[in-house]
Amino acid sequence: MIVEILSIGDELLIGQTINTNASWIGSELSKMGARVIRVKTISDDKTEIISALENLHPTTNCLIITGGLGPTKDDITKHTLCEFFDTELEIHQLTLEKIQAYFAARNRPMLESNNLQAALPKNCIILNNSYGTASGMWFEKNDVITISLPGVPYEMKGIMTEEVFPRLKSRFNLKAIYHQTALTQGIGESFLAEKIKDWENRIREEGFGLAYLPSPGMVKLRITSYNGASDSNKIDSYFKELKSIIPEALWGFEQDTIPEIIGKLLSKKCLTIGTIESCTGGLLANTIVSNSGASHYYTGSLITYSNDQKHRLANVSVDAILSHGAVSEEVAMQMANGAKERLGVDICIATTGIAGPNGGTEDKPVGLVWIAIAFKNKTIARKFQFGDNRERNMQMTVLSALNWLRFELENF
Amino acid sequence: MIVEILSIGDELLIGQTINTNASWIGSELSKMGARVIRVKTISDDKTEIISALENLHPTTNCLIITGGLGPTKDDITKHTLCEFFDTELEIHQLTLEKIQAYFAARNRPMLESNNLQAALPKNCIILNNSYGTASGMWFEKNDVITISLPGVPYEMKGIMTEEVFPRLKSRFNLKAIYHQTALTQGIGESFLAEKIKDWENRIREEGFGLAYLPSPGMVKLRITSYNGASDSNKIDSYFKELKSIIPEALWGFEQDTIPEIIGKLLSKKCLTIGTIESCTGGLLANTIVSNSGASHYYTGSLITYSNDQKHRLANVSVDAILSHGAVSEEVAMQMANGAKERLGVDICIATTGIAGPNGGTEDKPVGLVWIAIAFKNKTIARKFQFGDNRERNMQMTVLSALNWLRFELENF
Repeated sequence: MIVEILSIGDELLIGQTINTNASWIGSELSKMGARVIRVKTISDDKTEIISALENLHPTTNCLIITGGLGPTKDDITKHTLCEFFDTELEIHQLTLEKIQAYFAARNRPMLESNNLQAALPKNCIILNNSYGTASGMWFEKNDVITISLPGVPYEMKGIMTEEVFPRLKSRFNLKAIYHQTALTQGIGESFLAEKIKDWENRIREEGFGLAYLPSPGMVKLRITSYNGASDSNKIDSYFKELKSIIPEALWGFEQDTIPEIIGKLLSKKCLTIGTIESCTGGLLANTIVSNSGASHYYTGSLITYSNDQKHRLANVSVDAILSHGAVSEEVAMQMANGAKERLGVDICIATTGIAGPNGGTEDKPVGLVWIAIAFKNKTIARKFQFGDNRERNMQMTVLSALNWLRFELENF
Repeated sequence: MIVEILSIGDELLIGQTINTNASWIGSELSKMGARVIRVKTISDDKTEIISALENLHPTTNCLIITGGLGPTKDDITKHTLCEFFDTELEIHQLTLEKIQAYFAARNRPMLESNNLQAALPKNCIILNNSYGTASGMWFEKNDVITISLPGVPYEMKGIMTEEVFPRLKSRFNLKAIYHQTALTQGIGESFLAEKIKDWENRIREEGFGLAYLPSPGMVKLRITSYNGASDSNKIDSYFKELKSIIPEALWGFEQDTIPEIIGKLLSKKCLTIGTIESCTGGLLANTIVSNSGASHYYTGSLITYSNDQKHRLANVSVDAILSHGAVSEEVAMQMANGAKERLGVDICIATTGIAGPNGGTEDKPVGLVWIAIAFKNKTIARKFQFGDNRERNMQMTVLSALNWLRFELENF
């Protein structure tokens, strides 16, 4: 089953609305084993709509249109579809009654434009909309199914889920595409590719697909099977192998988040955690508490942005700051130990670095960060060199610190 | 100037990534007076790319391609562009040096695949990428400009801003659309519209456009003139009027950020600031230090997530917590005063609330937040009721706290 998506609306073209409808449809269809090969966004314009309907990819057998079905007067999709499918509008009694009931239930007056929403093409299947007044439409012509849905996300999703997916599933003999995703941190895309080359070649030879999906500081590795979920054990064993190749980088799977993984490990081991932050200025703590159960293992933090606060709040020696500088292994270790004590926690992570864009020197350039972790009976520190973007340096520091902690908690 | 956008990448088609690049480009171009007429998303596939290049709308004079320029082997955009524009790759010396410097600065080894990123088409203008290793490309053929950019959003945005927009502006005779934007916080869109109705009607009657651009917690008000920058004084005076109608809400203009505005006010008045955070867990501090000059007025914070830490670090009385609860005016005030003392700062903001999604009661529902600000000689507190989304509640708390502080600093 090969699908194209056509999104209609000027608000999408001028960037006032982000096209999350297309992503949602793409994601749901690919889970079902259908393949979306094109997404096209165009204006509320008759010529553009006709041109899109006429220029489908030769292999496409299903076109899903969203948008352009609301009650306002500039919506011309319905009329254009009538013209293209050589039919005309007539009042659809069930839809009319539903619209009337909808307004009655909300005690709102019905306008002429709402009545017109019940005027639907004669020769299509009407798709029921349980969440609004614009019905969906299902046309067939030359072996291509064309489905037209309103653009309001929850209405579109409702019709897709209740009316469209069941029909598509029963109609197409879907090839079972199945994805599983491993999440890595700390190795750039090209270096990672080099490191897992043999593993990658082997799984490709065995008929699986592999995609690298990078985002700042992270690379997702997605394995695709074309035989459906029956390959899930096989993929599991590929990922087990991968974990032994890159144990420090591979931190989770699918929808996992680092704060959740950390939370589970800390809860399991009954450990509490705190942070003391210079260059990250609270972002590390905020990332930890983004997990809503954080109060079970997280109690508090110190943010010691100035040298004076490092001494004042965490007892870092003035001497260490003067002789090594605030961005140094010595100060990071003293921060972690001092704050562990002050906060009364089992583990404390310290960050100190030059977030930028200013403040770098030849010895200590922008992007230089020291991270230290104080455990019950050891304190470890590590140097990182990130780039020159302040916000990203903070994010990279946080990801690196938490992924490093995850690795330590898993292994000791 | 008529533009099409071509987004390349399977991750977009299967909905793993939302196409925010296209929205950003659409929004920036429409501000410049250019019109995006189509956005097309396709697979990393040679035939599809060629087909898209060949089937532009007849009026299109600029095609912007994003995606498909990374170092991994599944990226084929560059080769396809060479074929389409009848040219070949050669090593671009400046790009090669930049890539080498990039890896040297990060102390990371360079791979063959990174070298290959410096192989660029002979007959195009190379667009400098200050944020990564993949350069952009600018081709011209048959009066159509084709621009190819990497898909990583901050790299794409960097190249667009530094290299593409200036060239497009000088090339095309863009219609003189001119925008100025006022930034408001704390009043919802419809309530704001009601409040400024008369003002809005008048500026519309005088031939200007007004757009409400809402985002969580904020509404931007954009005035559009169709006569270009000569109207700028007139718009300034509209905004001055607006400021007198909504002084608490209107906090800035254009590219201002609240942390910058706060920073300027604190620096001017030679005041230092700290925070003590419960429900925001560091986000308030992190927002303050997102301004790179923050070390001039910000020294540190306490994050007191647990009740114990509120007492331990900021001397909040156990009695106050027991009798009023941690989310109360009394505790917020004690937090602000205690932390002001402990941190030795002039001003301290305290946040305590129920971020959710759990932990609410009938009396104190999810989304209830108390904010207190301790100044040299007064401490003030205020209650807010936000929604049920944890992340959103933290953001709204931070925006409300900082906008409130801005208002206080401006007026006293």
